[in-house]
Amino acid sequence: MIIVMERTATENNIQKVTKTLEEHGFKFMINRGEIHTVIDAFGDKTTLTPGRLAAFEGVKEIKVIREPFRLASRDRQPEDTVIEFSNGVKIGGGNRPVAMVGPCSVEKDYDGLLKVALAAKEMGCEFLRGGAFKPRTSPYDFQGYEELALKYLKRASEETGLLTVTEVMDSADLSMICDYVDVLQIGARNVQNFKLLHAVGKCNKPVILKRGLASTIREFLLAAEHIMYYGNHNVILCERGIRSFDSAFTRNVMDIASIPVIKKYSHLPIIVDPSHGTGQRYLIEPMAKAGLVVGADGVMIEVHHDPENALSDGKQSLPIPMFKDVMGRINKMNNRLHYERTCLSANVE
Amino acid sequence: MIIVMERTATENNIQKVTKTLEEHGFKFMINRGEIHTVIDAFGDKTTLTPGRLAAFEGVKEIKVIREPFRLASRDRQPEDTVIEFSNGVKIGGGNRPVAMVGPCSVEKDYDGLLKVALAAKEMGCEFLRGGAFKPRTSPYDFQGYEELALKYLKRASEETGLLTVTEVMDSADLSMICDYVDVLQIGARNVQNFKLLHAVGKCNKPVILKRGLASTIREFLLAAEHIMYYGNHNVILCERGIRSFDSAFTRNVMDIASIPVIKKYSHLPIIVDPSHGTGQRYLIEPMAKAGLVVGADGVMIEVHHDPENALSDGKQSLPIPMFKDVMGRINKMNNRLHYERTCLSANVE
Amino acid sequence: MIIVMERTATENNIQKVTKTLEEHGFKFMINRGEIHTVIDAFGDKTTLTPGRLAAFEGVKEIKVIREPFRLASRDRQPEDTVIEFSNGVKIGGGNRPVAMVGPCSVEKDYDGLLKVALAAKEMGCEFLRGGAFKPRTSPYDFQGYEELALKYLKRASEETGLLTVTEVMDSADLSMICDYVDVLQIGARNVQNFKLLHAVGKCNKPVILKRGLASTIREFLLAAEHIMYYGNHNVILCERGIRSFDSAFTRNVMDIASIPVIKKYSHLPIIVDPSHGTGQRYLIEPMAKAGLVVGADGVMIEVHHDPENALSDGKQSLPIPMFKDVMGRINKMNNRLHYERTCLSANVE
Amino acid sequence: MIIVMERTATENNIQKVTKTLEEHGFKFMINRGEIHTVIDAFGDKTTLTPGRLAAFEGVKEIKVIREPFRLASRDRQPEDTVIEFSNGVKIGGGNRPVAMVGPCSVEKDYDGLLKVALAAKEMGCEFLRGGAFKPRTSPYDFQGYEELALKYLKRASEETGLLTVTEVMDSADLSMICDYVDVLQIGARNVQNFKLLHAVGKCNKPVILKRGLASTIREFLLAAEHIMYYGNHNVILCERGIRSFDSAFTRNVMDIASIPVIKKYSHLPIIVDPSHGTGQRYLIEPMAKAGLVVGADGVMIEVHHDPENALSDGKQSLPIPMFKDVMGRINKMNNRLHYERTCLSANVE
Repeated sequence: MIIVMERTATENNIQKVTKTLEEHGFKFMINRGEIHTVIDAFGDKTTLTPGRLAAFEGVKEIKVIREPFRLASRDRQPEDTVIEFSNGVKIGGGNRPVAMVGPCSVEKDYDGLLKVALAAKEMGCEFLRGGAFKPRTSPYDFQGYEELALKYLKRASEETGLLTVTEVMDSADLSMICDYVDVLQIGARNVQNFKLLHAVGKCNKPVILKRGLASTIREFLLAAEHIMYYGNHNVILCERGIRSFDSAFTRNVMDIASIPVIKKYSHLPIIVDPSHGTGQRYLIEPMAKAGLVVGADGVMIEVHHDPENALSDGKQSLPIPMFKDVMGRINKMNNRLHYERTCLSANVE
Repeated sequence: MIIVMERTATENNIQKVTKTLEEHGFKFMINRGEIHTVIDAFGDKTTLTPGRLAAFEGVKEIKVIREPFRLASRDRQPEDTVIEFSNGVKIGGGNRPVAMVGPCSVEKDYDGLLKVALAAKEMGCEFLRGGAFKPRTSPYDFQGYEELALKYLKRASEETGLLTVTEVMDSADLSMICDYVDVLQIGARNVQNFKLLHAVGKCNKPVILKRGLASTIREFLLAAEHIMYYGNHNVILCERGIRSFDSAFTRNVMDIASIPVIKKYSHLPIIVDPSHGTGQRYLIEPMAKAGLVVGADGVMIEVHHDPENALSDGKQSLPIPMFKDVMGRINKMNNRLHYERTCLSANVE
Repeated sequence: MIIVMERTATENNIQKVTKTLEEHGFKFMINRGEIHTVIDAFGDKTTLTPGRLAAFEGVKEIKVIREPFRLASRDRQPEDTVIEFSNGVKIGGGNRPVAMVGPCSVEKDYDGLLKVALAAKEMGCEFLRGGAFKPRTSPYDFQGYEELALKYLKRASEETGLLTVTEVMDSADLSMICDYVDVLQIGARNVQNFKLLHAVGKCNKPVILKRGLASTIREFLLAAEHIMYYGNHNVILCERGIRSFDSAFTRNVMDIASIPVIKKYSHLPIIVDPSHGTGQRYLIEPMAKAGLVVGADGVMIEVHHDPENALSDGKQSLPIPMFKDVMGRINKMNNRLHYERTCLSANVE
Repeated sequence: MIIVMERTATENNIQKVTKTLEEHGFKFMINRGEIHTVIDAFGDKTTLTPGRLAAFEGVKEIKVIREPFRLASRDRQPEDTVIEFSNGVKIGGGNRPVAMVGPCSVEKDYDGLLKVALAAKEMGCEFLRGGAFKPRTSPYDFQGYEELALKYLKRASEETGLLTVTEVMDSADLSMICDYVDVLQIGARNVQNFKLLHAVGKCNKPVILKRGLASTIREFLLAAEHIMYYGNHNVILCERGIRSFDSAFTRNVMDIASIPVIKKYSHLPIIVDPSHGTGQRYLIEPMAKAGLVVGADGVMIEVHHDPENALSDGKQSLPIPMFKDVMGRINKMNNRLHYERTCLSANVE
């Protein structure tokens, strides 16, 4: 790390820093500039954290050179993580992008869910998603059908062969949820609910981790690190839009560039969720394609058999006929992208 | 609510909306503008939510007139909420602002904590704060001493008479925490951890709810609403900075104006935390004063007996002697503000 | 417009509003809700602006229904604007996307510029771009070669047949610039330099208007409206990234979704600039493709014959060989997109 | 500066950097970490800019140690800049905070302006502010009365002895404006209109520079640097709110902490503008006080003799009677703050 001293730092301030570095076995070099003294230090940051040195008198700031995530970093694992399911479906590592589709919430009408699942199956999608526990900004909104919804998901999975995804909001529900579904999801609002990250870190199910509304890319990868640190390395990142100063036309701003950035710095797979990312039905297709063309390993799309009567997120859900059209075009793009990446020697697509 | 139809909406789209409004017992008026048709609707939004209507074909957007928080709203309760403790300390309602001080984390050295507590007592502060469970961006950082820390807090409370505050991260720890401390805190990263909000909503301890890094004022008050909805009306809001595009000199941007805004729209007390809000020791005093001068009901300040060896947040903690100086000046200001508000007929301060 | 009164508004406050509405010939309806009185008003907002009514006592806020841009709006002109140049090149309206390439700054070495221009020509690009006047955050950075640079651009245009683009920073330079180039550019930092917008609004050259770092989509279209209002309807919008809370890996966040949003609400063409949008060479290709796949009418890419010696923006410029590879793949995509849009009956791509 | 190489950088990449450093007379040290090689370099950054090195192959990023502003920096000038006017009024350097008040726009009714000026005079304010040239987001809004407004300002100044402030939007108007007013203002939207900054940099009138909606503190000080670089060192900074994700209750978020931050890193005076900062009349008083209590050298407040008929910004203007009440309380605070700073040995207020 680089320790930048204040212009007004005294010789004493500097020595206190270097003495502490010595005590912790750091190597360092002192560079005295015209204005600032700068100390380059190399050593084990688990025994002496940058945050601790930042508190020393006369220290202006600490610049950390190495990315703070380790298990999630491509520095440690150059090859892509590939997550493989028992039915042979694979996510990541240049495999053909997957599709996860379904209603925001699983509702009381099982037939509606089944219609969506059958359409998903027909269009070649691999996963059925649906909420059983719903994080809602207002306590007056619908909060999910909990175990009933999980049962419906499992039943639809048995009827169609689709894998299933649902969101976990509380570690207390985790073992029940694991009994029903194939993939756990951590929502954007829980991206720094560290206790929950630790709990899913101890599970043996793959976890979709959604980027928080205010997560930097670094914090997002550190949230994945929390899960991996507790033993679960099957983390699938999900870009779903961040908060910006403009929400007049889209709920969030999708940070499409984060996908190739994360591909560069991490080996974890990453998918894109244009339903939450934009909140607008008409933007789902273009933004799914934008994510895929820059390298996303899959898409997550909200589909409802009757969006105008959906209990949540109808505005950003595709009705089934529109879903089939959109998915047909996305499939064509995925086929082409996959062909180019595997059969041609294209550098980047 | 106001339903704005798209320019391209058909007569059929409009009728589908009005029919649904009728079915749910809404009164409404249709206003056909040159470009957009606009429908004003009045009725029970718990049976027909704005989100559901937004999903209708031809609907551009829904503008909601009434603030979505209810229990937290000054519309429902014009008089300030005042939270009173068994020792007579009161928060809110124009009472003299309180001070909550202590280390970011409670550490293994009890004497250090006691030194801080004694200094707090000496300076007239009412609360000792300290972390037992620590949310940390990186899994490699110190995560708190858990029950040991709670025991230390309680012991320091017994020795000094200070009330105590600590953060809850998981509902599983809640009953243990309630055995030790007087006030629960929900951290910024858990402001939309709705399961945790519901859990503290069922407790009989006052809750400090910190504004999330990306919480709008409306979402912040809705988070409080989640707690109140489950029965606990003793919520103390805490402005602690929001995320902005500039973090070069301060960790966050403190939204000082949110304090008088919240005072206008809610009856809940609100305090200000300049330690987390700025991340800089030298900004604690000015930003505490800024919060108090616009009407905050208290301050939360990190104080450590030895910041250069703190296990967390040393950079933004005051060492004890500096704390005494700063608190002395803050006390003077609080005395003056309290005098002006109670004894003079000042309109606004 | 919808006038929402404060909960505390008096009957007198309401009557003052309605009396003023009457005086200005507005039709209106008063809706008295449980909490708020709401007034729907219809009339000529140029004689009574929403801003003026917002200042009335007891008014909480004004909600405007109609988008504030008019000339730029698809409501007024449903068909796409197509800008055609004397050599037959067209931008917008579903024509094949164009490419504008060249160095950030035109430098003293004409041969370098010519190399870039020849490569652009070889790859089928239509425009050569290069800065003569440079907006630089620091006064200590290179500010551009001004008229010399313009002469070089014109010479390279004559040698290659490429059209030329350069940025205008001051209306005082405008007539000189118009003598040399085919397209004017307004930079992101001048997006609300209204005097400059008015000046280019009086020119007969097409104008590329870059989105400001903090421009909402609405403000961006209103900036275009300023140019159009003064007579110049040939405005080409350019998405080049907005400011977010995370600039660790990319300079800005590219708001790719703004492209289909703007296509929906405006008839103006829009291009995408991944060089400024990301600030990273390796992200140019993926983000150009992301922009094109959602419907951009062109790309702007920085190319330099020797980026390591560039006087500005070397980090985000492609060297010529890499440019040829990237442009080859972008051309392939453009051909395919153009084929699908014109020859197939694809609804949306 | 610190040059951080990519993990994948080759020995050749490193040598190309160090060779270039040598050629430009830089001293440097190479530190080879486990993952990244880091080069500390010391030398004249005007001949070899960080931006140029960033473009070298294998360079991940450049971390600059020294703040990029020089003339504006407290490193170069430890003592506060004090701006003194011919009538003895002083801004900065611990002098009693000044007040600049007046309507957003100077309107056709001179008597209205005079009423405001007389009230300002009565309350001890030093400056009358009023817009002659108005930057407006929409071309359909009122754009200012130009020279007529300047004449009115001068006449009101002659009648009251107040100094005058008005905004400059175009260098073409500058000499005319200088004939009429005492202080020039650069608006938030022009903070990076570098040509205009250079033009006022050549004037001999003090300049109020407003922070841009998306200006970082560093960019804001660099904008001041542009003015100073052209010779005008009498720059008064103005914090007036930045853009955030929440504009439901306030137009902008006032970054009150930027005031003590800027005081630490720059010697320039800084004032606070709560009218534009919040856009809400009821927040003017508390936010003016918040700015003053953290050290602002003055306040700028919009006052109108008839806000409900103001041609612009009525919502955020104080009517005269309310202004007198507010200003009376602000004066009391200013007196007390000034007393504490000059007569007592208070460290910080």
